[in-house]
Amino acid sequence: MAPAPSEKALIPFVSVENMMRLVHHVGIEPLLKELADAIETDFRRWEVFDKTPRIASHSREGVIELMPTSDGEVYGFKYVNGHPKNTAGGLQTVTAFGLLAEVATGYPVLLTEMTLLTALRTAATSAMAARHLAPKGARTMAMIGNGAQAEFQALAMRAVLGIDRLQLYDINPRATEKAVRNLAGLGVTVIPCPSTEAAIEGAQIITTCTADKQFATILTDNMVGAGVHINAIGGDCPGKTELHRDILLRSEIFVEYPPQTRIEGEIQQLDDDHPVTELWRVITGAALGRRDDRQITLFDSVGFAIEDFSALRYIRDRLAGTSFYQEIDLIADPDDARDLFGMLQRAAS
Amino acid sequence: MAPAPSEKALIPFVSVENMMRLVHHVGIEPLLKELADAIETDFRRWEVFDKTPRIASHSREGVIELMPTSDGEVYGFKYVNGHPKNTAGGLQTVTAFGLLAEVATGYPVLLTEMTLLTALRTAATSAMAARHLAPKGARTMAMIGNGAQAEFQALAMRAVLGIDRLQLYDINPRATEKAVRNLAGLGVTVIPCPSTEAAIEGAQIITTCTADKQFATILTDNMVGAGVHINAIGGDCPGKTELHRDILLRSEIFVEYPPQTRIEGEIQQLDDDHPVTELWRVITGAALGRRDDRQITLFDSVGFAIEDFSALRYIRDRLAGTSFYQEIDLIADPDDARDLFGMLQRAAS
Repeated sequence: MAPAPSEKALIPFVSVENMMRLVHHVGIEPLLKELADAIETDFRRWEVFDKTPRIASHSREGVIELMPTSDGEVYGFKYVNGHPKNTAGGLQTVTAFGLLAEVATGYPVLLTEMTLLTALRTAATSAMAARHLAPKGARTMAMIGNGAQAEFQALAMRAVLGIDRLQLYDINPRATEKAVRNLAGLGVTVIPCPSTEAAIEGAQIITTCTADKQFATILTDNMVGAGVHINAIGGDCPGKTELHRDILLRSEIFVEYPPQTRIEGEIQQLDDDHPVTELWRVITGAALGRRDDRQITLFDSVGFAIEDFSALRYIRDRLAGTSFYQEIDLIADPDDARDLFGMLQRAAS
Repeated sequence: MAPAPSEKALIPFVSVENMMRLVHHVGIEPLLKELADAIETDFRRWEVFDKTPRIASHSREGVIELMPTSDGEVYGFKYVNGHPKNTAGGLQTVTAFGLLAEVATGYPVLLTEMTLLTALRTAATSAMAARHLAPKGARTMAMIGNGAQAEFQALAMRAVLGIDRLQLYDINPRATEKAVRNLAGLGVTVIPCPSTEAAIEGAQIITTCTADKQFATILTDNMVGAGVHINAIGGDCPGKTELHRDILLRSEIFVEYPPQTRIEGEIQQLDDDHPVTELWRVITGAALGRRDDRQITLFDSVGFAIEDFSALRYIRDRLAGTSFYQEIDLIADPDDARDLFGMLQRAAS
């Protein structure tokens, strides 16, 4: 039998089951709040990160993407797919996993599921952006699209901003029923609505999170009144948008990483030089966020590698002292680093 | 406690220990031969693959790379680092792991260690190239650089070409001693040599595989006689080469993927339009390999994503019916694909 792997060969792995245990150990809302803070911390030091648009492999059925980044000390990447037709076969549209490694050695230090973690970080990012952009005292959010992301958005907005009234609409009433059921008893008043217009009525924040992979118009211009914050997260790949172009022209637009958002976000509908503000500049004070009560702010969010990096870093810190991981033997670590073959040979005996 | 994950959530994971078991189950030489054939099969259908230079994150200490590719049905990528100074701290210079996924759904189907597998596929690729380029009847190989890759190269060349005499040289005599020790009794006559010149004497194949991350001259022009095949695998990143430029000018140069090799290979020393032949074109018969007995052929190998893809695909096929893997819960798979939050909630109870 092979000799036991050395300590350096073992990488902590967080399975889906352990991620769920960790989330409940911390508490969903506290975790979403801490995650929003971790992401904000990294947006504040945006300039130290290697930034590149994600590396996408497109097919008829969907896309597989790698999203790497590094702050010079730690390297992280996420593998994530997007296959809108998967749900028809009982599969997830989006699944993901991720890895952190030490830049100085290239050795991995964490492997983790990121299907759940992506849902958490997406919601935490939305709430972090809304903290800087939504009108003061916002209490009501409209949620258009009640799929897998809906409850995470609701709880992140509650944890970070104190949103306590949620007005839901989805073209599929069963999606709305599911969200109503899941959010029962969690401290948010949840109102299922018969239309997008009804859901938007009186909301200070409008979140759009639908899944059609085509140019769609979930919100038309006449639906959107002065002063609201739009959190647009469903328009996130080429050919997939949710907002009518006229809304964009009336809004102050905030984005994560312009080279990626111009290809994937709502602003793919606009000219390449249409002015947008990078969210990190608002957070550091280099740019203005919301200027007045009448302004429409739009966070055109497509998800960016730095948010995944923050989430991975947060999970690594939170794992310390817990048992919510297993160690896996991912890295060969021979006694003599030059003697990989000898290690293999000795395993035969 | 969380409910048990469903079958779709479970991905076969091959640890280093299981990879070693699988290698011994198949046998090192048979496996190297089968792997060379698997790589050749994929080179034969080169045109169906998505090709992109690897995505590198460089630091002072080394590089971390992601190497993705897809044949339209299966997607694969490798994570690999290269940190020349790691050995000083008792760590591997190169560690790696990789993943295969189904293009149609984006769901991963295999996660595996690739530190050993990269060593195996690198040697198998060298032997596959030599099968097409080395002089007929070659029996003797010089191996300059006797580090972690040396024994794998020797056995792949033996398995695929019948090389049975190996002349070794390394500036570090302990590296040579290690290779001599590891290769004892494996059917190759192994001769440690006092110099590069002595090691090259009478060899039909010269393999250079040294690790210095700087422009080096392991071979000078006067050392290389007519008719040999040079298998240059140590020059594999910007600033790292092993051969004197004049050798390149006398050789017919064969490469994997020109856009990557021009940046990373020996040919970074040449003009960008210096003629090179893509190895896959030799294999399909679209280009000539070795033309005559006097010609110097040079395989300027830097490693390419398709070789890793072949290796991943081969391992997946070879795993079938064995127990050399464990199943890990990498992918969240709720009963209702839209109800990720419900799955998380139910795990609390």
